[in-house]
Amino acid sequence: MSPNLCLLTVVPTPVRRRCALHYILLHLLGYKLSMDDLKSFRQVDSLTPGHPESSHTDGIEVTTGPLGQGISNAVGLAAAQAHMAATFNKEGFDLITNHTYAFLGDGCLQEGVASETCSLAGHLQLGNLIALYDDNHITIDGETDVSFTEDVVKRFEAYGWHVQVVKDGDNNLESIYNAIVEAQKVKDKPSLIKVHTTIGFGSAKQGTESVHGSPLKADDIVNIKKKFGFDPEQKFHVPDEVYATYNAIGVRGAEAEAKWDALLAQYAQKHPEEHKELTRRIRGDLPEGWEKKLPVYKPGEKNAASRKYSEIVLQAISAGIPELVGGSADLTGSNLTRVKEAVDFQPPSTKLGSYAGRYFRYGVREHGMGAIMNGLSAYGGIIPFGGTFLNFVSYAAGAVRLSALSQHHVLWVATHDSIGLGEDGPTHQPIETAIHLRAIPNLHFWRPADGNETSAAYLFALQAKGTPSVLSLSRQTLPNLENSTIEHAVKGGYVLHDVEGENLNIVSTGSEVQIAVAAAELLAKEGVKTRVISLPCWEVFDAQPKEYQLQVFRSGAPYLSLEAYTTVGWQKYSHEQYGLAAWGASGPYDKVYEKFGITGPNIAAVGKKVAEFYQKRGGEVISPILHAI
Amino acid sequence: MSPNLCLLTVVPTPVRRRCALHYILLHLLGYKLSMDDLKSFRQVDSLTPGHPESSHTDGIEVTTGPLGQGISNAVGLAAAQAHMAATFNKEGFDLITNHTYAFLGDGCLQEGVASETCSLAGHLQLGNLIALYDDNHITIDGETDVSFTEDVVKRFEAYGWHVQVVKDGDNNLESIYNAIVEAQKVKDKPSLIKVHTTIGFGSAKQGTESVHGSPLKADDIVNIKKKFGFDPEQKFHVPDEVYATYNAIGVRGAEAEAKWDALLAQYAQKHPEEHKELTRRIRGDLPEGWEKKLPVYKPGEKNAASRKYSEIVLQAISAGIPELVGGSADLTGSNLTRVKEAVDFQPPSTKLGSYAGRYFRYGVREHGMGAIMNGLSAYGGIIPFGGTFLNFVSYAAGAVRLSALSQHHVLWVATHDSIGLGEDGPTHQPIETAIHLRAIPNLHFWRPADGNETSAAYLFALQAKGTPSVLSLSRQTLPNLENSTIEHAVKGGYVLHDVEGENLNIVSTGSEVQIAVAAAELLAKEGVKTRVISLPCWEVFDAQPKEYQLQVFRSGAPYLSLEAYTTVGWQKYSHEQYGLAAWGASGPYDKVYEKFGITGPNIAAVGKKVAEFYQKRGGEVISPILHAI
Repeated sequence: MSPNLCLLTVVPTPVRRRCALHYILLHLLGYKLSMDDLKSFRQVDSLTPGHPESSHTDGIEVTTGPLGQGISNAVGLAAAQAHMAATFNKEGFDLITNHTYAFLGDGCLQEGVASETCSLAGHLQLGNLIALYDDNHITIDGETDVSFTEDVVKRFEAYGWHVQVVKDGDNNLESIYNAIVEAQKVKDKPSLIKVHTTIGFGSAKQGTESVHGSPLKADDIVNIKKKFGFDPEQKFHVPDEVYATYNAIGVRGAEAEAKWDALLAQYAQKHPEEHKELTRRIRGDLPEGWEKKLPVYKPGEKNAASRKYSEIVLQAISAGIPELVGGSADLTGSNLTRVKEAVDFQPPSTKLGSYAGRYFRYGVREHGMGAIMNGLSAYGGIIPFGGTFLNFVSYAAGAVRLSALSQHHVLWVATHDSIGLGEDGPTHQPIETAIHLRAIPNLHFWRPADGNETSAAYLFALQAKGTPSVLSLSRQTLPNLENSTIEHAVKGGYVLHDVEGENLNIVSTGSEVQIAVAAAELLAKEGVKTRVISLPCWEVFDAQPKEYQLQVFRSGAPYLSLEAYTTVGWQKYSHEQYGLAAWGASGPYDKVYEKFGITGPNIAAVGKKVAEFYQKRGGEVISPILHAI
Repeated sequence: MSPNLCLLTVVPTPVRRRCALHYILLHLLGYKLSMDDLKSFRQVDSLTPGHPESSHTDGIEVTTGPLGQGISNAVGLAAAQAHMAATFNKEGFDLITNHTYAFLGDGCLQEGVASETCSLAGHLQLGNLIALYDDNHITIDGETDVSFTEDVVKRFEAYGWHVQVVKDGDNNLESIYNAIVEAQKVKDKPSLIKVHTTIGFGSAKQGTESVHGSPLKADDIVNIKKKFGFDPEQKFHVPDEVYATYNAIGVRGAEAEAKWDALLAQYAQKHPEEHKELTRRIRGDLPEGWEKKLPVYKPGEKNAASRKYSEIVLQAISAGIPELVGGSADLTGSNLTRVKEAVDFQPPSTKLGSYAGRYFRYGVREHGMGAIMNGLSAYGGIIPFGGTFLNFVSYAAGAVRLSALSQHHVLWVATHDSIGLGEDGPTHQPIETAIHLRAIPNLHFWRPADGNETSAAYLFALQAKGTPSVLSLSRQTLPNLENSTIEHAVKGGYVLHDVEGENLNIVSTGSEVQIAVAAAELLAKEGVKTRVISLPCWEVFDAQPKEYQLQVFRSGAPYLSLEAYTTVGWQKYSHEQYGLAAWGASGPYDKVYEKFGITGPNIAAVGKKVAEFYQKRGGEVISPILHAI
């Protein structure tokens, strides 16, 4: 079973010394981290990188380091616990009961993402979340007095949290313990325990920012070791009684786990269906045959916006994939992310839903939504999706890159892509967002051209266990295209419209593919034979066998890319690029497309010029994807 | 003079109806917006786009729409007022006294960026900031009850704000007026006035989310017009008495402005130096000859990290450019953004600095810093710069793109770029950030290779009035290179190392240019003649005459790009690309470079392979920047 279903979940703050503490604790508690691993702290290829990575080191539950992410992931973990408990716990079977513990510092609290998620945690009444705020009054710039003088206790009370203050966290460890016990009793509010501490406690430089990033001097280390009863001569040494103490904790943990396993075995007897579901979900296996429900379209049939195709997919598959737990950052009616029978994920006391509900109301908190989804995914048993406008995925960039680095299985339903959103104008029209997301390793950016491609995007994204996906979806209607099929599109790219002896290829994505097709038809009439390639997902296409790639991008004629975004990046797949030179414009979408020349007739004219240019230049036109290295 | 020095600054919230209200008010107050402009609301090329753009429409002071930006810009505007007042006001000359007014809604308050900036505004005691919170209990998803139940009053008190509540904002306009008067009296705290209102007041659908995005029905409009005493038959009609009322306000404004101009004229007499400075700064002209202070280096001399070269630039020019007002998001000692004689921008009561201080302590609030810098720039008289790690510019993506769209003159000192930051590891190593920023229109992403290129980046960035710049700077030492000069580098790209009859070209940026040079030297020994091109700023290079561009990227031999980022995007300037396939790694930077093969010997080996591949392929190797369109 996933370790996340154990009794305790620890989320580290990103500060280096806490990261070292985290590794040391994992070592002492018997995780797969040896003393040699600790010695190679922050060395290439070690298990102990400068900040903890969940996909890299045993016992690290979420990747942190970038400030504000840890506490925000913790909100996701706590929400996941509430949801899984409400879904699977039965009378006599309190299977899922863990608390989520997070450690955070002043820096975490200053980050906006933490504000977003802590406000939501209060609203959601996540009683099993306990955050310990290490209030040492120091950030990298020095005293918090220089920039952080807000009343944190009052702020968290305003969010609806239960707040306690521990006055002497340096010496009075019992008071910390007591505060945690107290916090555990609070069932309807998340808890913040503000612990006053001294940074670098025991060092000659204690209480100053210089102990944050710089190593202590040798004599200072000797003094600290003496002060706390260690042998100053020994390095990387753990006294036997310390190992013994932590071993005892390990034994206690193993006993608890065995007891839990026994309970689970009884659960299997009493509730065999639920047990099967729970274990399937924790393993991350999808239900068998779910993909048969994916909508399939014939050309020209049931034309709709791709955000609508997405809604139809969600409506078709949601009942069959109960781990699909979605929401929107306050754009439900625009993102079309809520299926008809959805119940909101809400504290029962609000009477607006229940913790078993699968629809999250994230509020206008895109970055928070991203970080919470990472926590939901890290917990296990849940595949989260979140809706917003594609443009505002950028607000969440910090969480999105960590999602990819951490291999979280998360879906972004990013509607209103490109200038096709129309009237909202340049402030809302993503230009640079697609290439930004395409450049993030292990992130699949899908831009489907029609209904079948939208189904394909969901098919691939839901099967891509260790990879987050962003689905870039249109506000405007897109016709179902000839030769677009799920089988083609799941390859990330394919020849949508083929001809022999081509003079030109147009490679395009999403809402512009139909325009490429229109241009190809016009060009055919003028004797310019044009192939059209649909390339909904670069990264997935790049993973195809080279032979297939070269069938799609064969040598012979020039490639012209077409996308209503910046052309930056398209040189990889094309000799010539057509897109936006700068920002979009506010207006009805068809007028906006016209303004920028993204219409069949204009692209035909551009394509003709391209074909002629390369014909005139002479020599073989070599595939843009044929390389030396 | 800049309208920002007038008595009132209005920051709109991003909601469409407020945007329409904003345009209508500008029309009534006599700004350059005709009734026809109002009629073409949200039409292509109109002055009234779907969200207000400061670079587009007279009277729009900051571009908003993306939630949380408006209130955050307002914090920047208020900080600018405090700074300019402390710098230029003299006894008897209260020249700079304006309040900054911001209107915001529930959505704005949910965004993390607003939390960051409002916390800082409280710390900074910005008494001249007055925010009106339109508490209508509705967001797009419906009642705020579904996701936003925090106690906003208490939260803002925790930030150190003065908070008032107006109970009936629909009918009791006097109570709003009185609250504003009260807020104006508070000198040492920003003010929040929470105004309870009913969304769509007067409509049959008042109090529901459906009045947010959808137009009202015809009969409903008739009823509303009747209710408020308008002729229901007339559309786009302003009764004469309304024009008269607003005209009177305009007259009052003109009188106030005339009075202010007279005061400024007296100021010119009494304080000629300050007057000259103030007017120069508001015009956005740099002091004459400032660029002579830019450090110049000889090859191999005074080698340093480019973040250090940046510090030397700042130290050299800061005294001469008093409008350069900088700071860091809690990474001062790492970003090296604080010059020796700096005074912190702080409320005098803290005894930590003064409002005349030019160094901002932003705290760990990157997005907030970006949005505040946009406000500082919008005010006039200030060129803001802000420091953080390049990786965390992504946290601020929402503000950065608006900076570029709004043509704010803002500088990001983005240190610890690439995998060269070493030990902090993949969570802190930007991979996708460079191409993300390069893809934003009107944003200059500079990645200097050495001291002279760093000076060039500052030279260009400070002269680029309507363009924000991001300076991507190394943590590790970079040698001053042969043939690198300020004159070369300000072109955005140049031939650093030239040979005749080349077999290969390597194009690179920043810390990898020295590695390209090392590879070229090794290749020369093997008979592979190699040119090296340094391309510190793509967008600036692209603006050079095509002839110059083709001198740099001449046809003849293949181009290999080299950068310790993703290779995405480099196909524009090269036939072959070397970079990172995925994430970086934690370790000492030289070991990390080794791990990924970014060393002179390996790049030489790769370069040889590239040269041989193209030689074998035969035919002319055509410049990658030669195109049909």
